[in-house]
Parts: sequence; C-alpha cells; structure tokens
Amino acid sequence: MNFRISSAAFFPVFFFLLASQAVSQHISAYHRIARITVDKSRLNEYLDALHSQMSAALKNEKGVLEYIAVQEKDNPEKIIIFETYASPEAYQLHIQTEHFKKYKATVADMVLELELTDVVPVARRSKKMSVN
Amino acid sequence: MNFRISSAAFFPVFFFLLASQAVSQHISAYHRIARITVDKSRLNEYLDALHSQMSAALKNEKGVLEYIAVQEKDNPEKIIIFETYASPEAYQLHIQTEHFKKYKATVADMVLELELTDVVPVARRSKKMSVN
Repeated sequence: MNFRISSAAFFPVFFFLLASQAVSQHISAYHRIARITVDKSRLNEYLDALHSQMSAALKNEKGVLEYIAVQEKDNPEKIIIFETYASPEAYQLHIQTEHFKKYKATVADMVLELELTDVVPVARRSKKMSVN
Repeated sequence: MNFRISSAAFFPVFFFLLASQAVSQHISAYHRIARITVDKSRLNEYLDALHSQMSAALKNEKGVLEYIAVQEKDNPEKIIIFETYASPEAYQLHIQTEHFKKYKATVADMVLELELTDVVPVARRSKKMSVN
C-alpha cells in the first residue's frame, strides 16, 4: 500500500495535530487550590519561602504550569494558591524536587492549616494585563 | 521658564511613565474570590448563565479584566471564581450592567450559598499554555 501525503494536505493535518496536542494537554492538566493559614508573626518569612519555591518550580520543572497566589485582604495570613500542573504525574515529580522539599521543611512550623482541593476548569477569560 | 525635553531624555521618561502606569493599574486592581454552591439539579443551567455573564462582561466592560472559574472535582456544584476588576469603581459599574443583572435574576433560585472574599495578589507565575 502506497501512503503519501500531499503538501496541500500537510498543513491542515499539521495544525489538526497541533490543536489535538493543545486539547489533550488541557484535558490532562491537574488543577488544585491550596488554602494555607500561616502564623501571623512569620508571614513575611513564609511569603519569602513561597516566592522562592514558585520561581524555582516554574523555572526548573516542565510540568509546573502556573501558580496564582493571593492573600485575603482582611486576613492576610490566609493564603490561597491556584496551582496548575501538566498532569497528576507532573505534580508527583514536583513534590520530589529539592526546591519543594526545602520549601516544606522551611515552612513546616509556620503553616497552621493546609487544605488542598482538586478542581476542574469551568472557564477562563482575561484581557491582556500586567500582573506581578 | 523654558521647559524642554531633549529627544535623548524622551525615551527613558516615556518608559518610566509607561512603567508607572502599569504599576498603578496593578495596585488599584480589585481582586476577589467568589465561592458559590449551586443546586446540583440545575448545575448545567447555572454554568450556561455563568459563561454568558463572563463573556459579556469581558467583551463589553473595560474594567472587567479576568475571570478564572473552576469547580471542585469531588463536589462539582461548588464553584470558585477568581475575579479581577480594574478598580473597586469598575466593579461597581459592573454590577449595574444589564448582563450582570440578567445573570443575577437567572441564577437567583439556583445559587444555594455565595461567599465573597476580597483578596490581594501575592505572586503570579505562569508558562505560556492553552486554557479554555
């Protein structure tokens, strides 16, 4: 059997494969919300450790896709982090990294409560904007 | 008094002003997390109304910057929305719009619980990725 793909067919096929790849990456992504209550007297120390962990993870781990961290306006010791990993496996790799282990050890006695909730995307809409 | 700005000075001043603008927009932005529990039997209807509201707001309102909506994996009737408006005033304008009023009226008897929490950004790191 002779299998050939003409150059006219190549580009549609190529872009279909690209689109499939994007969709499959999206479907397999692992999303989670972490709610963390920090010892108020050590909040700045905690935030330093969190920043270091997030920067190292994004820089060094292919499977860590996004962190959005906020604190409650009226209770700044309450931190909420929206986390996106490429897959559940990427998350399992993440928690074995040196930077994550260092973060966990550093903040062990600063974190009073930790609640982790797996979530699934509903929708995301954004304008182009500057965020820190 | 003669005020002149040389062309050599123009570009640094211009970019300083641009950067100041970005910073001031960031500082004044209004961020909130909405936690919504929906009547399970009407979840699809609720999600339709939410999608319509979000799309209309992003399209028609300059001051609505971002919505990230997720649902708990184990309790899909629990919706969490991370909302960003350009300012508290932009949010006040938002709740006066026809699309928002329509959304509120449509979902009034679908929403069992609503909890709104003002939040402040801590950090945001992301890789370029495809999200819906």
